[in-house]
Amino acid sequence: MTEKAQIGVTGLAVMGRNLARNFARHGHTVAVHNRSYGRTKELVEEFGHEGTFLPAESAEEFVASLERPRRVVIMVKAGKPTDAVIDEFAPLLEPGDMIIDAGNAHFADTRRREAALKERGLHFVGTGVSGGEEGALHGPSIMPGGSPESYAALGPLLEDIAAKVDGEPCCVHVGPDGAGHFVKMVHNGIEYADMQLIAEAYDLLRRAGGHSPAEIAEVFRGWNAGRLGSYLIEITAEVLSQTDAETGKPFVDVVVDQAEQKGTGRWTVQAALDLGVPVSGIAEAVFARALSGDPAVRQAAAGLPGPSATAGAGGADLQADVEQALFASKIVAYAQGFQQIQAASTEYGWDIDPGDMAKIWRDGCIIRAKFLDYIRKAYDKQPGLASLLVDDYFLDAVAGAQDAWRRVVATAAQQGIPAPGFASALAYYDGLRAERLPAALIQGQRDFFGAHTYHRVDKPGAFHTLWAGDRNEVPA
Amino acid sequence: MTEKAQIGVTGLAVMGRNLARNFARHGHTVAVHNRSYGRTKELVEEFGHEGTFLPAESAEEFVASLERPRRVVIMVKAGKPTDAVIDEFAPLLEPGDMIIDAGNAHFADTRRREAALKERGLHFVGTGVSGGEEGALHGPSIMPGGSPESYAALGPLLEDIAAKVDGEPCCVHVGPDGAGHFVKMVHNGIEYADMQLIAEAYDLLRRAGGHSPAEIAEVFRGWNAGRLGSYLIEITAEVLSQTDAETGKPFVDVVVDQAEQKGTGRWTVQAALDLGVPVSGIAEAVFARALSGDPAVRQAAAGLPGPSATAGAGGADLQADVEQALFASKIVAYAQGFQQIQAASTEYGWDIDPGDMAKIWRDGCIIRAKFLDYIRKAYDKQPGLASLLVDDYFLDAVAGAQDAWRRVVATAAQQGIPAPGFASALAYYDGLRAERLPAALIQGQRDFFGAHTYHRVDKPGAFHTLWAGDRNEVPA
Repeated sequence: MTEKAQIGVTGLAVMGRNLARNFARHGHTVAVHNRSYGRTKELVEEFGHEGTFLPAESAEEFVASLERPRRVVIMVKAGKPTDAVIDEFAPLLEPGDMIIDAGNAHFADTRRREAALKERGLHFVGTGVSGGEEGALHGPSIMPGGSPESYAALGPLLEDIAAKVDGEPCCVHVGPDGAGHFVKMVHNGIEYADMQLIAEAYDLLRRAGGHSPAEIAEVFRGWNAGRLGSYLIEITAEVLSQTDAETGKPFVDVVVDQAEQKGTGRWTVQAALDLGVPVSGIAEAVFARALSGDPAVRQAAAGLPGPSATAGAGGADLQADVEQALFASKIVAYAQGFQQIQAASTEYGWDIDPGDMAKIWRDGCIIRAKFLDYIRKAYDKQPGLASLLVDDYFLDAVAGAQDAWRRVVATAAQQGIPAPGFASALAYYDGLRAERLPAALIQGQRDFFGAHTYHRVDKPGAFHTLWAGDRNEVPA
Repeated sequence: MTEKAQIGVTGLAVMGRNLARNFARHGHTVAVHNRSYGRTKELVEEFGHEGTFLPAESAEEFVASLERPRRVVIMVKAGKPTDAVIDEFAPLLEPGDMIIDAGNAHFADTRRREAALKERGLHFVGTGVSGGEEGALHGPSIMPGGSPESYAALGPLLEDIAAKVDGEPCCVHVGPDGAGHFVKMVHNGIEYADMQLIAEAYDLLRRAGGHSPAEIAEVFRGWNAGRLGSYLIEITAEVLSQTDAETGKPFVDVVVDQAEQKGTGRWTVQAALDLGVPVSGIAEAVFARALSGDPAVRQAAAGLPGPSATAGAGGADLQADVEQALFASKIVAYAQGFQQIQAASTEYGWDIDPGDMAKIWRDGCIIRAKFLDYIRKAYDKQPGLASLLVDDYFLDAVAGAQDAWRRVVATAAQQGIPAPGFASALAYYDGLRAERLPAALIQGQRDFFGAHTYHRVDKPGAFHTLWAGDRNEVPA
């Protein structure tokens, strides 16, 4: 009997190829397949020495080379290509086999596909894989959804190839059906917020602080050694210290300031709106990119006036203040993202452990940071935590940061430097802790113009005031 | 030959009933129909003297009583009920007849329905109707989509029953298929933003200014006589001056401060995200309502600390400053909403005249205001206006307001009063006018971790820096 493969990968562009190599490097025999056989041959020729690959020319050959239950990882473009590959392979598989979609699918598609394949006795596992090409090869953060049975058969292989922190793999069974792709989406949404906040910190140090990109790179380097220590802070220092070879100017000054986006940030906000979770930090980040990417409007608006009397610059304390504002705003962004995960878990019955998410994001992915250890600890202590903000560590951090945070938001407003992330995070914080919100007025307005009714603070029931009549209150 | 009706209304809950009465009061013979005949009889018994109604017990009878081309207005709950009624009536109609959905459908559903009925030779008109029950009876703002042919046959009737400003009806053919429901959705999104900004103004006057609701009602009454004059400002004064009969307290203090929402605000933001238009003002308003409506998280967060050193209150100028901040923020919210309409018009080929939208919102709807006349004029002068903010009137207003606006945002931040709408609007304004945005750093980060490439300010093409290699730049 010929050797069988423990796992197969179809779709051998760079992400699929690197995942296949990662499996092989960990001692697994890997079946490899691609629509065009050329890529498959290339992979084996170039990297065959790294482990055992079973190249397959046809889907049938590929499937036949897999041990049971078959584990078929598909790594193709999200959307129709994914459905096409599923349609190609599902008929070749037998009950108990599994298809693993490691692409960036929308979680609703994953739910649909999982339900459809379950009817045919197949497991469908939508899994988030974060860390890009390098992560796929050297150890990504992996967020698999799907059934517990599928994880029992697949999990050990994924844990093998995942990043490790103190020996713990950055991979855990997130929850059923679309749970894995959902948390990967929120991971990306948080990444948007994180990047926007860093960008605002840089802008303030540059414009209010008067520092050069090289100087700011040093500031970020210093921050990276502290509580803000993270991959994104680290690479920010690298980007800011880069000099453009051609012009001798700071690299960041020769780059067009129009941020692009691929869609997961947008998806996160759209899903949060459906769930009724306020992810204002992520939304402001997505909108800030959209604003930056509209040159026509920006050009038309270029003449709009700025502040007539510039307030004094932040002074010597600006750096320390901005560090505090960045840390506090980051806590808010993560609090919002984790609340979205908890809300989705309840909505879809996923039973996600938020602490586990923090655990598997500690390495391998873009938002990897020490910070996540504190989030993990917060949820380990109190799995039903209403908000990260009320955990002792984060509460202390925000309490210590808030005066500086307020100064930074005020300075940005007065100096005309856009800081939508910082400002929105602070407004969220102040809204959350407010004893009374002006939402009561909004309820009054809604009752006035649409008879939408309101509740009273002193007794149960819904009420309506006869605004167009004698203005008495009636039960609704 | 028996008398035929010019128009028919099916679905006689309060909105449908009031629309039918409005048509009858304008001299049109109106066929009326309801799933249960009781409501139809009631309408004729109670309001028969207002005009000529032709009550129909069955769908067949209803359709037979209409002159050709038949105009069937359906006013039922959005979603499946709408599809059910369409399925019931479409087979009874003949080519050239039209079904008018006056409910709050999502514009994507309207597009789908219009396409399906067009294949059967029927016109489908999704129309926004704003102004609630009172508007439906006395003159709403009407936003019909659908084909130009359908408007030729239907428009005059709608213009008859619409609100009027200086004799001009608040009704215009918005554009094809879903255009009408789209602009109605954005109207509601703007309404969310408007209400949130008013709520923030009230909160600042109350908490930073130390004024009572009754005093603030007077402030709003004063504002209503000025450039902020609008229905929402007017009813805010009414709500704030209301005293609760039972407790003797200000009404606004006995209302539970959890704002509810029905979904069009959320839809607006979701659609804007798909279009890539930054509607941060509407998003912050939707999120502020969501935050207020989560008592569990708010209760957990009630102990979070506020500012340790409260900055001085706004002083005597606070009222004037807040008026400026409110006006400037409102301009931003409308600029964003109108930009969303323009983007959708381009995306879907609707050819919407934004000035027409401002024109038909001047009366009959919730956001009716003098203000809209200036928007109309801005687009009349320059139909392709990149942003309302660059029109002379609005530019002058914001230029004059901005110092006060900045003081208000700074005060809110320093005093711990949540003002997400004011702060977000200001950040948008400062982002739009910024010569350079830190989006360049974000592009650098994206290139670093994902090889997403970037553009240069000094030459065309896409580039990538070999971050993990020698850090030279290569064409992408």
